[in-house]
Amino acid sequence: MRAAVMRDWQLRVDDLPDPTPGPGQVLTKVLACGICGSDLHMLQHGAEVRELTRELLGDAEPDPMAPKSFEPEHDTVMGHEFCCEVVDLGPGVENLKVGDVIVSMPVAFDADGLHTVGYSNRYNGGYADLMVLNEMLGMKVPTGLPVELAAMTEPLAVGVHAVAKSRITAGESAVVIGAGPVGLACIAELRMKGIGPIIVADYSAKRRELAALLGADEVVDPRQEKVIDVWKRVDGVRPLVIFEAVGVPGLLDQAMQMAPRHSRILVVGACMQQDRVHPMLGITKELNIQFALAYEPHEFAGALEAIADGKVDLQPWVTGTVPVDGVPQAFTDLGNPEAHAKILVVPGS
Amino acid sequence: MRAAVMRDWQLRVDDLPDPTPGPGQVLTKVLACGICGSDLHMLQHGAEVRELTRELLGDAEPDPMAPKSFEPEHDTVMGHEFCCEVVDLGPGVENLKVGDVIVSMPVAFDADGLHTVGYSNRYNGGYADLMVLNEMLGMKVPTGLPVELAAMTEPLAVGVHAVAKSRITAGESAVVIGAGPVGLACIAELRMKGIGPIIVADYSAKRRELAALLGADEVVDPRQEKVIDVWKRVDGVRPLVIFEAVGVPGLLDQAMQMAPRHSRILVVGACMQQDRVHPMLGITKELNIQFALAYEPHEFAGALEAIADGKVDLQPWVTGTVPVDGVPQAFTDLGNPEAHAKILVVPGS
Repeated sequence: MRAAVMRDWQLRVDDLPDPTPGPGQVLTKVLACGICGSDLHMLQHGAEVRELTRELLGDAEPDPMAPKSFEPEHDTVMGHEFCCEVVDLGPGVENLKVGDVIVSMPVAFDADGLHTVGYSNRYNGGYADLMVLNEMLGMKVPTGLPVELAAMTEPLAVGVHAVAKSRITAGESAVVIGAGPVGLACIAELRMKGIGPIIVADYSAKRRELAALLGADEVVDPRQEKVIDVWKRVDGVRPLVIFEAVGVPGLLDQAMQMAPRHSRILVVGACMQQDRVHPMLGITKELNIQFALAYEPHEFAGALEAIADGKVDLQPWVTGTVPVDGVPQAFTDLGNPEAHAKILVVPGS
Repeated sequence: MRAAVMRDWQLRVDDLPDPTPGPGQVLTKVLACGICGSDLHMLQHGAEVRELTRELLGDAEPDPMAPKSFEPEHDTVMGHEFCCEVVDLGPGVENLKVGDVIVSMPVAFDADGLHTVGYSNRYNGGYADLMVLNEMLGMKVPTGLPVELAAMTEPLAVGVHAVAKSRITAGESAVVIGAGPVGLACIAELRMKGIGPIIVADYSAKRRELAALLGADEVVDPRQEKVIDVWKRVDGVRPLVIFEAVGVPGLLDQAMQMAPRHSRILVVGACMQQDRVHPMLGITKELNIQFALAYEPHEFAGALEAIADGKVDLQPWVTGTVPVDGVPQAFTDLGNPEAHAKILVVPGS
């Protein structure tokens, strides 16, 4: 099969042997797989992130339930936002059949334990023609739902989870810093939950436009006006949750500076470097900072359901499709936020 | 009256004119006033903290409800952990009479607004013979309660509030980093709430001893064993809240490093400097960080009640008393954690 392969922190397109499903697993054909910013980040900064992780967690006991990670000197095929069609069944599969269209949380398990699909040397992700998935985690895509939209289940689930972790409720308001895919997913979920107003800041006009399409009440270019000033202008009274969806050093402290007393900050932007903060800002305003990662199975299922039921229209989010051979160029193109939000890999396109 | 006076970040003992109660206020004689670490910090680092505050909050609108702060070039008498006896009544006072023994939150108000007692050029704190307090905030000390213990209402209230903000409940466990007065107050309140086990880390043997007396299940010298390893040894399964009660740079990141997945960190140590953290630790473990400051009126009242009802014995906490003239020396003595925990100013002693 064709696959975009990462090895020694370099990306190439290559022919790999087709994978084989084990017991309880299915072989699938990738119909669509979104390219995630985490994968761009992994390619560029993976080595230093691994080094920092080792330093930070070095003396902690490894979590026996944690998925095995990939070794960079071996092939890794990334891609964890996929929608697939079942083409073959491994031993003992009972609830899926050839032709079923499914999505799945990007996790695989076998006799050796858990593996993160897309960050594993054993289980390739969706930047390829074929994938092996566990039957137990497969969720059938309702008939008629375009595969491009079904492939958005995973990124939407990130927003569903972040909003749930923020414990935001009706009557509260939201500021979202950053309208990249993670910020957009939060906006979509906030809108579905009836939260408002939602005020969104991003430097990119294209992303502000997407934010408005997905349900932001106000969008702002931080060069023109401070997002907190917009919130004060259009609301200023409701309890506020600030969603930090950028993840670069300095942003958390900025959020702490702008936060009103007793407000909450939900950090879903993954800042991998050391960061500087002023705890005094937290103390004097009694802030709460909640970090969020990934999603729970029921949130993943809820995201698929919301898309299938038409509760959210994610079509504007998709700004391009490429075949597997186009993945390296797509990684480059995604660097320009004016041109692209989400590029889908559609093998054979 | 005699008073320990701060001016231009220097402390002197001096004779000041007796204060006069306004409408709704009472003149009181100070019976006992605890010396708080915040006051030592204010004297040593007040100038730089004010500068940093100005930088950080410079462009924020001032909170019209915030108490007025003191000007360092004028006299300020600190001391906000006091128990007093009413000796004269201002106009319109109806619910207090001469001879009543009271405690009060360290706030005063008049036609000009709110003032922080002990950090105000107008309302002196308890490092003096006399104080003016608002009748409305005065809480009568139950007959028979020693004034030294009543004076501990304020520091205990800090722990009551921190524990409430942590949302810790029965069935969860606590690690307390630092057994200074703030950490000790948290331990006392955790014990009263029936939380356990409570594991406490401090470098000082004296403070570990106090922590055990106030209800810690395990105390540990961090040079001997990591506090999180003690928690793993004696518990390791209950949800955990880590109380950061030290407030120096690096401690928050340490708490984030030791924190198990999905645990919470309650920051009640007031780190005034810029600090360094690794947000990745928060993200990968989905930590929650809650900052806490001061207390609510009902928490202050609850602290007094707990002391009066004998639910907590704070006597071991008091390690010395000094007259007003002894305040500067006491500030020096408190630098040695082996010698002292809480020194009370007892005018005329």
